[in-house]
Amino acid sequence: MIVETVAIGTELLLGQIANTNAARIGERLAAAGFDHYNQQVVGDNLERMVAALQLATARSDAVILTGGIGPTQDDQTREALCELAGVDLVYDEGYAERLRARWEARGRVMPEQNLRQAYQPEGSATIANPKGTAQGLRMRVGDAWVFALPGVPAEMIPMLERDVIPFLEDRGDGEGRIVSRLLRTWGESESRIAETLGDLFDESTNPTVAFLASSGEIKVRLTAKAADDDEAEALIAPIEAQVRERLGSLVFGADDDTVEAVVFAALARRGWTLGTAESATGGMIAERITSIPGASKVFRGSVVAYATEVKETLLGVDPDVTAEAVVSEETALAMTRGAAEALGADVVVAVTGSAGPDVLEQAAGTMVVAVRTPETETVRTLRMPGDRERVRTYTTTAALHLVRLALS
Amino acid sequence: MIVETVAIGTELLLGQIANTNAARIGERLAAAGFDHYNQQVVGDNLERMVAALQLATARSDAVILTGGIGPTQDDQTREALCELAGVDLVYDEGYAERLRARWEARGRVMPEQNLRQAYQPEGSATIANPKGTAQGLRMRVGDAWVFALPGVPAEMIPMLERDVIPFLEDRGDGEGRIVSRLLRTWGESESRIAETLGDLFDESTNPTVAFLASSGEIKVRLTAKAADDDEAEALIAPIEAQVRERLGSLVFGADDDTVEAVVFAALARRGWTLGTAESATGGMIAERITSIPGASKVFRGSVVAYATEVKETLLGVDPDVTAEAVVSEETALAMTRGAAEALGADVVVAVTGSAGPDVLEQAAGTMVVAVRTPETETVRTLRMPGDRERVRTYTTTAALHLVRLALS
Repeated sequence: MIVETVAIGTELLLGQIANTNAARIGERLAAAGFDHYNQQVVGDNLERMVAALQLATARSDAVILTGGIGPTQDDQTREALCELAGVDLVYDEGYAERLRARWEARGRVMPEQNLRQAYQPEGSATIANPKGTAQGLRMRVGDAWVFALPGVPAEMIPMLERDVIPFLEDRGDGEGRIVSRLLRTWGESESRIAETLGDLFDESTNPTVAFLASSGEIKVRLTAKAADDDEAEALIAPIEAQVRERLGSLVFGADDDTVEAVVFAALARRGWTLGTAESATGGMIAERITSIPGASKVFRGSVVAYATEVKETLLGVDPDVTAEAVVSEETALAMTRGAAEALGADVVVAVTGSAGPDVLEQAAGTMVVAVRTPETETVRTLRMPGDRERVRTYTTTAALHLVRLALS
Repeated sequence: MIVETVAIGTELLLGQIANTNAARIGERLAAAGFDHYNQQVVGDNLERMVAALQLATARSDAVILTGGIGPTQDDQTREALCELAGVDLVYDEGYAERLRARWEARGRVMPEQNLRQAYQPEGSATIANPKGTAQGLRMRVGDAWVFALPGVPAEMIPMLERDVIPFLEDRGDGEGRIVSRLLRTWGESESRIAETLGDLFDESTNPTVAFLASSGEIKVRLTAKAADDDEAEALIAPIEAQVRERLGSLVFGADDDTVEAVVFAALARRGWTLGTAESATGGMIAERITSIPGASKVFRGSVVAYATEVKETLLGVDPDVTAEAVVSEETALAMTRGAAEALGADVVVAVTGSAGPDVLEQAAGTMVVAVRTPETETVRTLRMPGDRERVRTYTTTAALHLVRLALS
């Protein structure tokens, strides 16, 4: 079954909000095994709403509309559905009464404006809205089912879950389920990973293989379609095993795993605590680690030694070393040793560098990361492209990966 | 001029990411005075990509495509443009050379896979990508201009700003300009601010007044449409003056001003340095301050004293105080005093609290912020709603505002 989403709202076109409804619905459709090939967004304009709905109902088996069912004049989804289906609005007295009662229960008189919501396209069924006053609509137009839901995500989502998806599942012909596995990698380029896995991509139609790049991480996505979750998982398993074997330690986790969570688990497993000594990253590594609930089990703290003098006073870095070079492997290693003592931490990761745009000894983007564990010391000089924000973020991710590799 | 956006990417249909590109482009089109009536999203499927482009080029004067121009097999925007325009791909040897040189400069051999990016539809012009390797494309198809940009927002946005918008502005027939002024406030609720400014909102049609809430900040947006920027600014100026007068010190900046930039400027003006002492925020305040280029002029560093023992050893907080309560105004104040000495900073902001979900002495969301300057000491206990991430982010913003107010 092909399901299409159409979002109504000028605020979406003006960019005042992003269309997160389409993403939420898309996620849910994928889990239910429906095909979702097209999303459309149009403004609060009757003519363009009708055109979008004509296109959607002609090419899809079901259309999920969000927005435009509220009480104000710019809410025109009801009128658009009438024009699409060639029917009139009919007045639902019972609903009007319930609306009035709802306002009265709050000790207020209902503005008449709200009665717009009691008019519905002839032949439509209503969908209860447990979180708000605008009820949803369901109607048959040509060969397609059309659902109209509110634009407010907190109202839309329960209506999608309780009514729309079960209704479509009852009418689908056992479309089965779509299951995705994201394998998350760090340390190689997207093109190199695509090349390494090229033949899997060419040969496999179920699961399909795709690549996604974000924030220096390359994700390999395997998507299988099958009668049920177990069968889909069984299709994914052998390809996943091949991907993991070919990529080795480049793969650090799956699905929602983050590198900070992987580091946290590795520290807990070894019974070690962590501290950070940061200059150019300014506390970003500490912030990532402490984003994990219960971080205090492994995290001692951080010395953000931004001024050179603080590297000397709090981290005990020899002034001769910083006089030689602040952005250097010697300084980074000295910072790990000083922080291990100052923070009482078993493992320390330290960063010193030139984040830009100003040049500090070395070209902007030159970042030195050192990791010290009770067993090893490693240090790497990285050349990061991009602006200050990107240099800092990517270096933080790189630093966490170097900790991960040191603990593996 | 009617401009349409088409986003390419199966990850958008699967709901793995929201289409924030369309929102960013929509915002920019509105500012430039262009009409934006439709957004489409399709997956990495050649046939559906071509159909979406046919529809868009038939009804719009310009189409901005995002996604599908990377080096991997699922990037098919180049092929779709060829099919749409009835042309072939041609090989750009010069670009291929530049790609190879770029990899070599980083001491690596380029995977051949990347050469996919050197093939371009015949008759297309390229758009430089200052932040990545995939260059953009511009071509004429029928009566429409088509632009293909990367899907990664950080790469797409500068290309939109530097090339696409100026190109379209040169070809528009004087659509006029839409100018917006954002006045940024902190410290009052959206409804209270809306009430204070209610009559301005009711009476004004040009500029219009709107309210936007995000991350604990309320923004007042004034939007004027006029023949040129000067005329639009002249419409905004008197309303802006009234808003500023009514809201007083609630307004901390305009447009892209951030609270950290305002704090940075205030410190520089007074010739004072800053340090932070953070527990539950884990370095987030330091990270916000050091996001500003040249932060070292005012920022000394931070002690992220996550473990209670580190509060005692590095910040000299009396163990009797922490034994009494770690999440307390006494501890927060003691942290500011210890950090002022340890970091050699004139101004210190300290945070201790219970970010959740685990309870630390107090209910999750109880956060204590103290600020010490050479002239004053202030401390506030905040009750922040929401999850750990929200509590930490909002507390960081609140802490920066307390520093701002202490310096004003």
